[in-house]
Amino acid sequence: MKINGKASRTIWVKEPLGGVAVLDQTRLPHKVESVLLKTEDDAAFAIQAMLVRGAPLIGATAAYGVALAMRNAATDAALDAAIANLAAQRPTAVNLRWALEEMRKALLPLMPDARVEAAYARAAEIADDDVETCRRIGVNGMPLIEAIAKRKGGAPVNVLTHCNAGWLACVDWGTATSPIYHAHAAGIPLHVFVDETRPRNQGASLTAFELQQQGVPATLIADNAGGHYMQRGDVDLVIVGTDRVAANGDVANKIGTYLKALAAHDTGVPFYVALPYSTLDWSLKSGDLIPIEERAAEEVLSVTGRLSSGAIASVAISAPGTRARNPGFDVTPARLITGFITERGICAASHDGLLSLYPEHRSGGYAVA
Amino acid sequence: MKINGKASRTIWVKEPLGGVAVLDQTRLPHKVESVLLKTEDDAAFAIQAMLVRGAPLIGATAAYGVALAMRNAATDAALDAAIANLAAQRPTAVNLRWALEEMRKALLPLMPDARVEAAYARAAEIADDDVETCRRIGVNGMPLIEAIAKRKGGAPVNVLTHCNAGWLACVDWGTATSPIYHAHAAGIPLHVFVDETRPRNQGASLTAFELQQQGVPATLIADNAGGHYMQRGDVDLVIVGTDRVAANGDVANKIGTYLKALAAHDTGVPFYVALPYSTLDWSLKSGDLIPIEERAAEEVLSVTGRLSSGAIASVAISAPGTRARNPGFDVTPARLITGFITERGICAASHDGLLSLYPEHRSGGYAVA
Repeated sequence: MKINGKASRTIWVKEPLGGVAVLDQTRLPHKVESVLLKTEDDAAFAIQAMLVRGAPLIGATAAYGVALAMRNAATDAALDAAIANLAAQRPTAVNLRWALEEMRKALLPLMPDARVEAAYARAAEIADDDVETCRRIGVNGMPLIEAIAKRKGGAPVNVLTHCNAGWLACVDWGTATSPIYHAHAAGIPLHVFVDETRPRNQGASLTAFELQQQGVPATLIADNAGGHYMQRGDVDLVIVGTDRVAANGDVANKIGTYLKALAAHDTGVPFYVALPYSTLDWSLKSGDLIPIEERAAEEVLSVTGRLSSGAIASVAISAPGTRARNPGFDVTPARLITGFITERGICAASHDGLLSLYPEHRSGGYAVA
Repeated sequence: MKINGKASRTIWVKEPLGGVAVLDQTRLPHKVESVLLKTEDDAAFAIQAMLVRGAPLIGATAAYGVALAMRNAATDAALDAAIANLAAQRPTAVNLRWALEEMRKALLPLMPDARVEAAYARAAEIADDDVETCRRIGVNGMPLIEAIAKRKGGAPVNVLTHCNAGWLACVDWGTATSPIYHAHAAGIPLHVFVDETRPRNQGASLTAFELQQQGVPATLIADNAGGHYMQRGDVDLVIVGTDRVAANGDVANKIGTYLKALAAHDTGVPFYVALPYSTLDWSLKSGDLIPIEERAAEEVLSVTGRLSSGAIASVAISAPGTRARNPGFDVTPARLITGFITERGICAASHDGLLSLYPEHRSGGYAVA
């Protein structure tokens, strides 16, 4: 998608088999800057400090992190160590583990001296695959918006989203935003309510920014406000992303998603989760088994933004000595979810629904009792 | 309650029949400063700019605002104009209108030259009455906490609250916090989850601060996190305040309250609303008739806090040109509320429940169809 009118991805190889550049998302929307990752540790830091974030982009960055590790040492032990190190950076998103296992499968059978080139090639495939997967999520999700637009007789369709499941969370297109971008490109009138998404404000700093850059009408709201707008009939559709989907259709996503799902359910607003197949964790029976990352209290105790001087600064919002807790994700039960939008189509948020799109997991996957 | 170990109220007369001092709540918790209100316009500004906020304190400030107006001119026309001006500052809280009508009833029958003294006297009664009313809310609500403490065998009772319905929202004690302060003083172990309460962060800046000042264990969380803790069984009880209760028990309170009520209902956590009788609007059949204040977009687009230098500053959290909306309140349907805690006792959140405590409204009040 575009930043300042120029098409970009969130991650790209800087030179053949060289460093990997990423947009530094901790500086957006105040500064558009890229950072060059030269080592496995650079990649691990980028994931941990959230220079990159969003389940699919974390996966792609980890894949390139393995490639960077192979440049340094390409033994079996080095491969194992890199995968373990990168996997440990964020516990909730399953795409991270999925991408690392893809790298292991691609590299382990090879002789060490063939691994560097193969690692870059496989990481590039993972990134390209994410772009195509997200594009198809958009193609599959657009009819939901189109149908509402028809029903409303041309009045804008109001979509609410939480956090950033946009192209900045992926390599391009985004998951939750892909149907929005496809509908917008097709001339369907729409408007997006963007949840601020405290404590890290990915809605305010990333989603509102990327929608603005693509020319999609959007309104930033406090996380507290979405339920009110649903009660008033001002929201037609909710689409969010996810970091991990359990085999029964329970969804882990950014903290606060559960509250929006409850409000949508209470007010009869359709609530969809957009996801690529790499977010499905067939090994977990239900969402309460998904590990929930507890992040630093400091993220709750302060807010980072732009001073009137243009400088980026953090301000403390409470008295010194205030205690805080900071769970990064919550689990939305499948019963509150209208459906999943995937690269293969739309299905019910249930084990049977998922199997209808992914029948290859009927035998091999976890069997829900 | 105490600030820096010294007992204080949120509003007090500076000298006999002189100016009225209020704690400047826009500076808390970073600076503890009072502001002297000398005119009706000072009082109107203090309410509009939220130097004072919280339904009961808005009412008391408006009452003193009428007294300040009477010092300037005590005609019937001046009384009408002052009441109209002060009432227009905040549309949602009904205590504001209640306090102003109390002032009208007290002053209109008097000769103009008797009105100044009578106005100060009636305003002082309204403030003192709020202190006693809040104290009784605490006495009536404490047994709810005590019962959970007994069931938990001495483990701390975890109470969640939203926004600031503390003593800083009242003259003293608070509404939602009064049962907490009474339980804490009685030695019942408890811990409070404090919602940050974007966009104005009254939870982070006021509730966390006042609990800390009284020595009550508390944890600040993002507004997004409360549902997650309820799902995990980490919340035993929710108590919030309210700005207006309709005759059927629907409750207007700070934006986001509805989302917490949904989560409490979904997870079986008791959800109580604490209120003084002056918050009851017997004239409104249901909550959807309560006017919802739309505040400035700027409150959503920026966050005010303390720089590492100690200076207070605002930071913009989104790109220039971002559009925002800012509803100040939402309505929680009575069906999601376990009960009301009032100065007269606890009742069901329904018209019948309210009439059981306030039988004098059986004939005169609005009859729900």
